[in-house]
Amino acid sequence: MTVFWWQHPCKTLDSEASSRALQRQQQLTKPAGSLGRLEQLAVTLAGLQGRDRPALSKTWIALFAGDHGVVEEGISAYPQAVTGQMLHNFVNGGAAISVLARQLNAELDVVDLGTAIPLPPLPGVRHLQLGAGTRNFAREAAMTTGQCQAALEAGRDSAHRAVASGCDLFIGGEMGIGNTTAAAAMACALLRQPATLLVGPGTGLDAKGVAHKAQVIERALRVHQAVLSDPLQVLQYLGGFEIAALTGAYLGCAQAGVPVLVDGFICTVAALCAVRLNPGARDWLLFAHQGAEPGHRQVLEVLQAEPLLELGLRLGEGSGAALAVPLLHMACALHGQMATFTEAAVADRPA
Amino acid sequence: MTVFWWQHPCKTLDSEASSRALQRQQQLTKPAGSLGRLEQLAVTLAGLQGRDRPALSKTWIALFAGDHGVVEEGISAYPQAVTGQMLHNFVNGGAAISVLARQLNAELDVVDLGTAIPLPPLPGVRHLQLGAGTRNFAREAAMTTGQCQAALEAGRDSAHRAVASGCDLFIGGEMGIGNTTAAAAMACALLRQPATLLVGPGTGLDAKGVAHKAQVIERALRVHQAVLSDPLQVLQYLGGFEIAALTGAYLGCAQAGVPVLVDGFICTVAALCAVRLNPGARDWLLFAHQGAEPGHRQVLEVLQAEPLLELGLRLGEGSGAALAVPLLHMACALHGQMATFTEAAVADRPA
Repeated sequence: MTVFWWQHPCKTLDSEASSRALQRQQQLTKPAGSLGRLEQLAVTLAGLQGRDRPALSKTWIALFAGDHGVVEEGISAYPQAVTGQMLHNFVNGGAAISVLARQLNAELDVVDLGTAIPLPPLPGVRHLQLGAGTRNFAREAAMTTGQCQAALEAGRDSAHRAVASGCDLFIGGEMGIGNTTAAAAMACALLRQPATLLVGPGTGLDAKGVAHKAQVIERALRVHQAVLSDPLQVLQYLGGFEIAALTGAYLGCAQAGVPVLVDGFICTVAALCAVRLNPGARDWLLFAHQGAEPGHRQVLEVLQAEPLLELGLRLGEGSGAALAVPLLHMACALHGQMATFTEAAVADRPA
Repeated sequence: MTVFWWQHPCKTLDSEASSRALQRQQQLTKPAGSLGRLEQLAVTLAGLQGRDRPALSKTWIALFAGDHGVVEEGISAYPQAVTGQMLHNFVNGGAAISVLARQLNAELDVVDLGTAIPLPPLPGVRHLQLGAGTRNFAREAAMTTGQCQAALEAGRDSAHRAVASGCDLFIGGEMGIGNTTAAAAMACALLRQPATLLVGPGTGLDAKGVAHKAQVIERALRVHQAVLSDPLQVLQYLGGFEIAALTGAYLGCAQAGVPVLVDGFICTVAALCAVRLNPGARDWLLFAHQGAEPGHRQVLEVLQAEPLLELGLRLGEGSGAALAVPLLHMACALHGQMATFTEAAVADRPA
């Protein structure tokens, strides 16, 4: 039996560092537990980084773009040309994620995995062109085995570039007209749920459009039912280039020991796929926000993930994860810099 | 009839600037509405600042501390000496809000309104010493008329110092052992709700302690029932020095045209009191987070406030508001720096 690279073990946590961090939290000059979610966040990061006082220096934002053959079923409010147009916008600094990357002083790594209309080379974009978008998964497998593996590797390569640049937090973003349909189809297959429960408006469908999208997904689930018990085949048959890249990136990060901040619905589906391919990856995933897409909540629940923010976001691009980065920095600063009761000569509550 | 300073009109919003900002939001390269809460936040700030592209430069964090006579009823898990000890900690940089102020490069203005045990002068603290804490409001009025007005003015003065230092965002924080009891009592009076509905564990009471706290508040509401239809008297009879200072600060900000980011339960009760004293103040209040104290949700609802974060915080000190500041900065950056569909030559969805 072939052992694929993504089945190699993920880095193990340093449970002693998290124990010491938990102990420190209880000595800081505040009522125990009063910093809520930020306390556990610091303790978790301590375990991931293997130090009592975690600190994050630089964030890597990988933006994976790809087109989707399923768009020919009429499941998106936007024309497919937008995927390529947005690639220009990402590197020209005008997209939401470009603005947020500047605000965070983060590295932005833009990867074109394959647009429907091949683009002339854009400075600042890595063009991999695995295909002119995926095939229409309502009729046939979205990707060949080779395309799926190449997309997984493209994600892992971005994770490795992040490490090489000294980044210690990884955000994956995605852009691809039609990709909430692919993600919802994958979620249905991975969770064994009907499409009506997991499908939403994406970037802007009306109720009729959402119903049609659910029908397209149900059809695809019937067409491919023979292979959908295997998460790798779920990815290949129903996913997309950028979703596979996210999956590979998360697995690469977990193996290299880089904490990941997972963005919205599509990224969370990629995260679920990564965890199904290699359960050890779960430890390395932090979840940034609860998005507006209805299926997001269910995928998060299966992952036992409690996202940090809930702001009604449904943009993608990694934008929700970028918005949560300051909370991670502040959780580390509070944990590392607050005085203990002893240091500050403040009375703790009587035992 | 005397017209008090806090009844003077609040600054009016620039509705044209918000209209133009709303129009701009709809032209930015993202599906309409996909940045969720951040879109309205930018539009609101445009109206407050009177410019199409709002921007925040410097944050002022006023920390108001005071002791509470009602502590003699045994309603807090911590000894009263902690209020003074924490004043040291604030200026020595070891408290949560000290760490967050550094992270945000914010001005920290620490005001001691009156501790039970008067403190020797601390460098970096303004000692106003309006009294050795308030009186026990379960028996008598918490403050005299003069103390209440002095505390309101102390808050307004901090708002004026914020303006003078060029700050364009105001955060009020509080520290005072026993102050969730005072805030809950005020909320009961202002909302005409029984104590059992609004009382919570504060910094760490058990169920028995919470029940006792509710009884103390019910007793106080009976003792003072004759005066509780007037929000100013609610503040004087049931409030605290630091709560009155917060109220005065919010009113001063609304009159001076400085946006306020309201922290947790105690600050939200002060905000409600400010809005009852001068309804025009409401426009200037943004709400940072939904805290863990049970009464917080109800006070927020009455104010029709939708807080930005929900992280299970119950520390006070303005810490939750400080944690939300980066979201305001990022909302402004996205609004101001994203490209429009025309600028980026990206196709919008067909009309």
